[in-house]
Amino acid sequence: MLNPLITFTTDFGTSDHFAATMKAVVLSIAPRARIVDITHEVTPFEVVEGAYTLAQAYRYFPAKTIHVVVVDPGVGSARRPILAEMAGQCFVAPDNGVLSMVFAREKAKVRHITNEKFMLQPVSRTFHGRDVFSPVAAHLAMGVPPGKFGKLIEDHLRLSLNKPSRSGKRTWTGTILKVDRFGNLITSLHIDDFPQINVRPFDLSVGLEKINRLALTFTECGPGEVFAIVGSSGYVEVAVNQGSAARALGCGAGSPVELALY
Amino acid sequence: MLNPLITFTTDFGTSDHFAATMKAVVLSIAPRARIVDITHEVTPFEVVEGAYTLAQAYRYFPAKTIHVVVVDPGVGSARRPILAEMAGQCFVAPDNGVLSMVFAREKAKVRHITNEKFMLQPVSRTFHGRDVFSPVAAHLAMGVPPGKFGKLIEDHLRLSLNKPSRSGKRTWTGTILKVDRFGNLITSLHIDDFPQINVRPFDLSVGLEKINRLALTFTECGPGEVFAIVGSSGYVEVAVNQGSAARALGCGAGSPVELALY
Amino acid sequence: MLNPLITFTTDFGTSDHFAATMKAVVLSIAPRARIVDITHEVTPFEVVEGAYTLAQAYRYFPAKTIHVVVVDPGVGSARRPILAEMAGQCFVAPDNGVLSMVFAREKAKVRHITNEKFMLQPVSRTFHGRDVFSPVAAHLAMGVPPGKFGKLIEDHLRLSLNKPSRSGKRTWTGTILKVDRFGNLITSLHIDDFPQINVRPFDLSVGLEKINRLALTFTECGPGEVFAIVGSSGYVEVAVNQGSAARALGCGAGSPVELALY
Repeated sequence: MLNPLITFTTDFGTSDHFAATMKAVVLSIAPRARIVDITHEVTPFEVVEGAYTLAQAYRYFPAKTIHVVVVDPGVGSARRPILAEMAGQCFVAPDNGVLSMVFAREKAKVRHITNEKFMLQPVSRTFHGRDVFSPVAAHLAMGVPPGKFGKLIEDHLRLSLNKPSRSGKRTWTGTILKVDRFGNLITSLHIDDFPQINVRPFDLSVGLEKINRLALTFTECGPGEVFAIVGSSGYVEVAVNQGSAARALGCGAGSPVELALY
Repeated sequence: MLNPLITFTTDFGTSDHFAATMKAVVLSIAPRARIVDITHEVTPFEVVEGAYTLAQAYRYFPAKTIHVVVVDPGVGSARRPILAEMAGQCFVAPDNGVLSMVFAREKAKVRHITNEKFMLQPVSRTFHGRDVFSPVAAHLAMGVPPGKFGKLIEDHLRLSLNKPSRSGKRTWTGTILKVDRFGNLITSLHIDDFPQINVRPFDLSVGLEKINRLALTFTECGPGEVFAIVGSSGYVEVAVNQGSAARALGCGAGSPVELALY
Repeated sequence: MLNPLITFTTDFGTSDHFAATMKAVVLSIAPRARIVDITHEVTPFEVVEGAYTLAQAYRYFPAKTIHVVVVDPGVGSARRPILAEMAGQCFVAPDNGVLSMVFAREKAKVRHITNEKFMLQPVSRTFHGRDVFSPVAAHLAMGVPPGKFGKLIEDHLRLSLNKPSRSGKRTWTGTILKVDRFGNLITSLHIDDFPQINVRPFDLSVGLEKINRLALTFTECGPGEVFAIVGSSGYVEVAVNQGSAARALGCGAGSPVELALY
């Protein structure tokens, strides 16, 4: 039988002991677990950014993968720890919306994790990644059925994550979801919702720039030219060939974008 | 039988080939070893920071884990490589104090590693992580008994790591051990040594700020308020809800703190 | 039988989903693969830096290791994906010179990867790390013979990577290949090509500094003194004891160096 696969998506960084301590807890309970980091570099407390990064990656993991998601500014408060079964995988996370982009795509069975038998005792008030989420994931990996962790709920938090809104007859307002490592601006405009940009003229306004070129590859435009491109996740991105669109346009996560279709 | 578990704690970063080369050496000798990074992001040459990060993480790892610790400003000089058996685990490190915070808690059997049979030949003068510490850890993982690596010693370096000192009848002087990813200031004041702050009034002076509030969670104070909190490792931390105390107070590792109990 | 070993060398960073998505693709096809990151922190688009980092690490990995190398500014353009068998290992990369420093040392059999059966369909135009290089590596790990991926080629790109050139009777001009984590300047001067510096006087000019001291260890010079040292990979490095030579000299990757032998 294959060893269970557990991923981590957190804002803990890798310079402190946090990420390693969670892995140690997992391996102490589920010694054969294989661990893959999705990222520990979510901007501290940025639940929406964590939701986006997780949502781009999870579908590529094998069935039965267990995802531990800890972007948790409310640790120690009344927010609930939850366990969600979706897409043939399991997700363990705080109930703060960080799973919203997966909820939006998949049918989910969600439980409120309450069984203290599967937590590290005593549970601290400041590090539930170590004391709640990691041990729960490890016990899941050892075969404990989801039903043992707590009761089904239906009122888990679903953030309406920056869906573009119609602002005129032919215009939509969206937002920059994230700036990636290369400085590409990932907008909330998904090609599935705006397939017309592949075949009809458009204006995409970002900062002071108005873009009307849709490139198919990063390399087809001249150096310094700002263009739009459908990224590998299906979102429209604003990019510069071998340069940073974020720097060129002075924009970042949260900046508005406006799309006009003709 | 379970595959052996080897961890790394270094100041090598992850942008060079150093960390990967050590892992390659380990896997060439001990092909079934499982590797977990504690961190490669210790500030270059900062032995005390490495000692702290290791000390927070090691206890959560399973018995028999082998820890490779390479924060080694004296590489190539006369400082000895050592192998320490503590807490049912093994630690391979330079004898420069980087294990001090584990020595302070655990009973240790320490050896001076001298057996060149277990080193990569020729041993370079600048990369003992590759040529000494990693191959020794891998041979340990393959079942070579500790006694084969060198003789027991008792004069290994133990740094007196910033223990708070009494500065008056009711006052103690400590220090900031580390700033974590979130900007929390981790002081050298441990709750086991100062349990009174849980029940009696106190003043904690850090930079220009005098703090007298002890929070139980990061979320119970208003935005921008500076407060003290007992962190998940038991040290008193200075924090700001969803903000950076380091930035708010202009303090960093090494800054003094003063505690007054009433 | 041992589980196959797959490494990654990319400029994707670890804050986005890119690296994790590639690992997910690998583990979906080759569930028992073991994954080791060489680095994801190559400076974006810097093929030469990626070539250097890979070349320092690959030799330490066991036979049959499969290396995935994705520093790929030309993704989506006509540049070919290639599979190279060298040194008893396999390398999967774009044909843009990123394997040049391995080609310079090893005898290679190189193929143009064309068999779409081993790619993720549909292949995107912007993320061949996910759609081409990772699945090809995973199928290799599952035992698919290299010949199945495409035909042998001989015209793959070999960059002449900054080999030092003679600039006078006793002088050679080289370059800074990379600045490492510690600020050491790694020059393109290899000790195998200039063994004389071990025994004869020399001047090494870098920025405004003229260096004539060759140290054996980082610790033998006084604080602040700039010196040359033969690094663990055999390249002459310019260093400062517990300081950053890059900062002290204001130099970086690409800066020229001049060596005069006497």
